[in-house]
Amino acid sequence: MIYLDNAATTAPDAAAVSAALAFYGQKFHNPSSLYGAGFEAHRAVQDARRSLLAHIAPAGGFELVFTASGSEADNQAIFSSVRRGNFVTTAGEHAAVYQSAKELERRGIEVRYARLHADGSVDGEDLLRLVDEHTSLVSVIHVNNETGAVNDIAALSAAVKKKNAKALFHSDGVQAFGKIPFSLPQSVDLYTVSAHKIGGVRGAAALIRKKGVPLHPLIFGGGQENGLRSGTENTFAIVQFAAAAEKKFSSLGRDLEHVRALNSAVRTGLDTGIFTILSAEDASPYIVSVAAKGLRGEVLLHMLDDAGVQVGTGSACSSKNRYSRVMLACGLGEALADGVLRISFCAQNTAEEAAEAVAIINRCAAQLKERTK
Amino acid sequence: MIYLDNAATTAPDAAAVSAALAFYGQKFHNPSSLYGAGFEAHRAVQDARRSLLAHIAPAGGFELVFTASGSEADNQAIFSSVRRGNFVTTAGEHAAVYQSAKELERRGIEVRYARLHADGSVDGEDLLRLVDEHTSLVSVIHVNNETGAVNDIAALSAAVKKKNAKALFHSDGVQAFGKIPFSLPQSVDLYTVSAHKIGGVRGAAALIRKKGVPLHPLIFGGGQENGLRSGTENTFAIVQFAAAAEKKFSSLGRDLEHVRALNSAVRTGLDTGIFTILSAEDASPYIVSVAAKGLRGEVLLHMLDDAGVQVGTGSACSSKNRYSRVMLACGLGEALADGVLRISFCAQNTAEEAAEAVAIINRCAAQLKERTK
Repeated sequence: MIYLDNAATTAPDAAAVSAALAFYGQKFHNPSSLYGAGFEAHRAVQDARRSLLAHIAPAGGFELVFTASGSEADNQAIFSSVRRGNFVTTAGEHAAVYQSAKELERRGIEVRYARLHADGSVDGEDLLRLVDEHTSLVSVIHVNNETGAVNDIAALSAAVKKKNAKALFHSDGVQAFGKIPFSLPQSVDLYTVSAHKIGGVRGAAALIRKKGVPLHPLIFGGGQENGLRSGTENTFAIVQFAAAAEKKFSSLGRDLEHVRALNSAVRTGLDTGIFTILSAEDASPYIVSVAAKGLRGEVLLHMLDDAGVQVGTGSACSSKNRYSRVMLACGLGEALADGVLRISFCAQNTAEEAAEAVAIINRCAAQLKERTK
Repeated sequence: MIYLDNAATTAPDAAAVSAALAFYGQKFHNPSSLYGAGFEAHRAVQDARRSLLAHIAPAGGFELVFTASGSEADNQAIFSSVRRGNFVTTAGEHAAVYQSAKELERRGIEVRYARLHADGSVDGEDLLRLVDEHTSLVSVIHVNNETGAVNDIAALSAAVKKKNAKALFHSDGVQAFGKIPFSLPQSVDLYTVSAHKIGGVRGAAALIRKKGVPLHPLIFGGGQENGLRSGTENTFAIVQFAAAAEKKFSSLGRDLEHVRALNSAVRTGLDTGIFTILSAEDASPYIVSVAAKGLRGEVLLHMLDDAGVQVGTGSACSSKNRYSRVMLACGLGEALADGVLRISFCAQNTAEEAAEAVAIINRCAAQLKERTK
């Protein structure tokens, strides 16, 4: 199988898994336990925390709260920050932000959704227009998980702060972290990262916050994570996350060039008589979304699966809906939105795989087109 | 090292870890993905769900929502159920319930705490006295995580329902599940279980609910777990949890007898001139708490660690506080509360380990007593 659904989840880095397995064997102890082995587990969590922070905030000034998933981190950022006033976000957010916004609306909070450009990036002018003195939080996804569009969150957050210095700025960085070069600027208050999109295992993610930014727990209890996230620390997943991230960051530039070549091969190889490339040229090369007009993406996906290629349709998380909410917000008509495939890479994908996948996708799409004539 | 802190966390079952490792290798796919491998991951989660439910609710009538920790499940049960009226709980709850109650108080909700008996079990009469027509939820821990006291939640929940048929009943069953014989009665609406206390890994736990009982998400997003808990399913941890539980339930009675013998060896072997046994005879044999009058439990714990025995002081989660809130609620004076050790077993502990641990504990306590004279 050629796996091209790496934006949904990546294969865990085997070396990082092996390195962390000691935390299921000799080092399984509870980091809150007071004996030496407990302290060692605690220290491993602290080391992982420092290592992860050093990648994304090398100049310091940020802290990191481990959570069990990116969704949990997004939820914590939003429910902690939006207690009054309004919440400004975009029409292109991951479901964890979007559905949290919907919950805020049910609780009587006003949510304002900024428009998207056709490539899935946010319309910055529209976003800033929505921010006012009552805005408590602005949340803008860093790399759109369906199109790969990169939002310039450094510039957007600075502009938001200029309009309302008290508004907090959060970004879901799950599809950016470990993939595109980026360091947190002081204008970003809260930032979500996740392990399982970069070779980490599920069970580890984090909400990074600027020091001094108020943050409330979503999960109360034993007071782990400095009182900000209770529950026994998932030492194995946390240590494995740090090891996987270390590897990704050490080859980030090289991987980016490699993935750019794979992306380019798909963009230039797909049959333009059938496929429209939806992702912009300057999108994250890790994701390229395409649409086959008049074809059902889900049917094509199953044909590709049978032929040995695994791809997604929009976000895996929204796979229950026929049309992607984000694709429609990009202005895509239903005929195209119905035929969307998301092709997403990891550094382990080879040029041969990309070439073979392109041939298979073209062949299957042509067959389907023939069948549905 | 002799590990007698199994109530804090257990060593993950190695065979169950090995069996689940495929979900980090060939079967890493996102259960929401639409291709075959995604569906297989989804099916593995469903199989684990069915298997876990069959142990605790063999007659059916219950559903199971996977969470990442017992704390998360407790939080979801409480914040979902207590939106108005009052919340009745006990003075002997795990921090995940207790701190959620404190948060409810900050939000303006009245919380009523039932008194404990000296052994840590709840005073049932006091609990029922606190329940009235405005009670929205009652939460009573099944097995007290510090003393092992077993609350008869079947009887308590039935009595609660008799007084207020609309009140929901939740129990934190983390220290009971897979350890003491129990099936969920229809009078229990919500029940928390966790993997990492029974040979499972961290990252998997569950909130079990009676069918039809209203439940709101704590984490919003992609709509996993039937919309009740979003975030990509931690397939590895879930499958490993089910395998570990399968093993525990298959030998539950045999393990109970074995652990009862270990417990008895500790109770009868400890120097009665120094130690007071706090746990009642009818407590869960998996936990025995003792107090060394005039000695500091934490100092003794470190001496034991040096001598090769790992034990806890009260709950690992509350290790930051000198005195255990629960021990004080049991009526323990500060002189005794200061010297509490929690000794907790698993089925893998041997009679030889128990005997050696007793000898070491007696010796270290005598040395410490001599030193602090």
